[in-house]
Amino acid sequence: MAERIYNFNPGPSTLPLSVIEKMRAELTDYMDTGMSILETSHRSPEFKDVHAETKALVKQIAGLSDDYHILFTGGGASLQFAMIPLNFLQDGKSADYVNTGTWSKKAIKEAQIVGNVNIAGSSDDKNFSYLPTDLNLSDDACYLHVTSNNTIVGTQWHQFPDSKAPLICDMSSDIFSRTLPFEKFSMIYAGAQKNLGAAGVTLIILHKDLAAQAKSGMNTMLSYETHIEKDSMFNTPPCFAIYIVKLVLEWIRDQGGLAAVEKVNNQKQKLLYDTIDSSDGYFKGTTTEDSRSWMNATLRMRDEDIEKKFIAEAKAIGLHGLKGHRSVGGVRVSMYNAMPLAGIEKLVGFMADFRKANP
Amino acid sequence: MAERIYNFNPGPSTLPLSVIEKMRAELTDYMDTGMSILETSHRSPEFKDVHAETKALVKQIAGLSDDYHILFTGGGASLQFAMIPLNFLQDGKSADYVNTGTWSKKAIKEAQIVGNVNIAGSSDDKNFSYLPTDLNLSDDACYLHVTSNNTIVGTQWHQFPDSKAPLICDMSSDIFSRTLPFEKFSMIYAGAQKNLGAAGVTLIILHKDLAAQAKSGMNTMLSYETHIEKDSMFNTPPCFAIYIVKLVLEWIRDQGGLAAVEKVNNQKQKLLYDTIDSSDGYFKGTTTEDSRSWMNATLRMRDEDIEKKFIAEAKAIGLHGLKGHRSVGGVRVSMYNAMPLAGIEKLVGFMADFRKANP
Repeated sequence: MAERIYNFNPGPSTLPLSVIEKMRAELTDYMDTGMSILETSHRSPEFKDVHAETKALVKQIAGLSDDYHILFTGGGASLQFAMIPLNFLQDGKSADYVNTGTWSKKAIKEAQIVGNVNIAGSSDDKNFSYLPTDLNLSDDACYLHVTSNNTIVGTQWHQFPDSKAPLICDMSSDIFSRTLPFEKFSMIYAGAQKNLGAAGVTLIILHKDLAAQAKSGMNTMLSYETHIEKDSMFNTPPCFAIYIVKLVLEWIRDQGGLAAVEKVNNQKQKLLYDTIDSSDGYFKGTTTEDSRSWMNATLRMRDEDIEKKFIAEAKAIGLHGLKGHRSVGGVRVSMYNAMPLAGIEKLVGFMADFRKANP
Repeated sequence: MAERIYNFNPGPSTLPLSVIEKMRAELTDYMDTGMSILETSHRSPEFKDVHAETKALVKQIAGLSDDYHILFTGGGASLQFAMIPLNFLQDGKSADYVNTGTWSKKAIKEAQIVGNVNIAGSSDDKNFSYLPTDLNLSDDACYLHVTSNNTIVGTQWHQFPDSKAPLICDMSSDIFSRTLPFEKFSMIYAGAQKNLGAAGVTLIILHKDLAAQAKSGMNTMLSYETHIEKDSMFNTPPCFAIYIVKLVLEWIRDQGGLAAVEKVNNQKQKLLYDTIDSSDGYFKGTTTEDSRSWMNATLRMRDEDIEKKFIAEAKAIGLHGLKGHRSVGGVRVSMYNAMPLAGIEKLVGFMADFRKANP
């Protein structure tokens, strides 16, 4: 068996080892049922418990009131890019979107297929290296959409914009990585494969007031109303992926919740960015300091050859997945919740050694 | 640890124990990568291999030419109910649907939201206890849609209708349970949670000629063209669910493919239906003989009290999940591929004992 590596992949990404081991222990015989949770009916008492506990954990960890629906769907955040305007972009009105990179652009494209979009802000002029603050919000937007963390360019909102319109946020890549005033949002959605578990399920946190404004007439699976009415069970949900979300949320809870998670994430990002900033330009951050992501740090070195060497030598000592996204190049350090501080400590040690060996 | 039961749940349903054990053995460290397949990037060489092998196994097992695209999506067959008319029901034209029960009705409802539907046949007049043979097909239908196996009412097409229009089939509950002339179909789709693995992924087998006729203008994730162009990787696919499909398909291949699977399924259904037919009306089948499903046998007993007793006593000896669907009541024996012959042997033994004890 290979030694466990530090996995800096941007998603699907590292999971807590304890979560995988729990899953493994329960895989053949779930809770003495004589069958695997993989084989259990979604309408069985066992799976109903998993589902109810997962929803309760979401509310508990985020501190949400009962004014929110907690839903699970398939299709990833990309399907939400379409469902949001199909449900909430009213005919003859428009929606505000902030363009902060690839994922925002994809969300905007889907909204433009459905109706009118106002680009309320964009950092396109400087390769998305910052987050726009002076937003041009519409008076009567159906909603304002933002992308909380931008995995490819390495930026993250640390102060979300105020908005009269309902605030909708794609938190796929940083959900539950820090304390936040979650009740500021009318809708939060997140593919599970970074901070919540494995690919295959999307968590949707939807305020009842926004849900009540949904349009009708679209196909059944595309309507939030369907998933609300049927409690995510209109059809067979991605049961095993929901079960993994439960295990990950228990892991967050058992650490002490978001305050504890935030503390470790803060230590990790500080250690890494301090190493970059004190490298006399050997490692160069690609974003403005105030928009730096705690989840995905992007950096460049003096040329592509040295970046390739850095990534290859890191891999050789068990630091995997440091290559930047193919659209931007460079180095990317994805350090989601499940990346332990020890992984960043090993990485910054390697960064110092590499710099010494390759002046 | 509880003794492994016989799990007759209609879906999610029993998996081959060897598949779960393989999964378990690989769960913490996949192929000496030092990480779990759950944590592996969908663009890594390891997952690309899983994906390529799964597609190749689908083609090999079904004997399909390269004229078919093999796609994997989230959202279940229910999302396909919408995507099929969104892509293939041309404006001003109509599609033929055969109504053989709950799942057909759901597919028809979604098509009616999109455009014109011709009900080419229905067995609604007799509680869907048979399959309509004399179909009223349109001359210029965009396609003909059928449901291969009807889990709730216990019927299954053993001879598919001939059609000039492209034949589209929902095979969610009986895919790869028998040899079939698969090239008769322009599209086959199946949620994985019965015969292909766990809930969370849908297999789509789509002929290039039908794919070429798809409409445009819908949201990106709802277009088959997207999934074809991006080889099911427009966004992060449900990786682990695809990996389980691979393991299940290897299990089918290693048994000797569909001919071998069909042989066992035939033995199972024959043993069960013979027991019903030779019970002097103690157990009563609910469908016509020529439409009986090999996957879900539905039966009634003299009253609901005795049915309840039967289901409870069966459960007590390790025969789980025999309750009929809540919409029809009675007893349902789901015997998908992964149910061994020994499970049916134990069940028919119990049926004889129960009859003797409760004359």
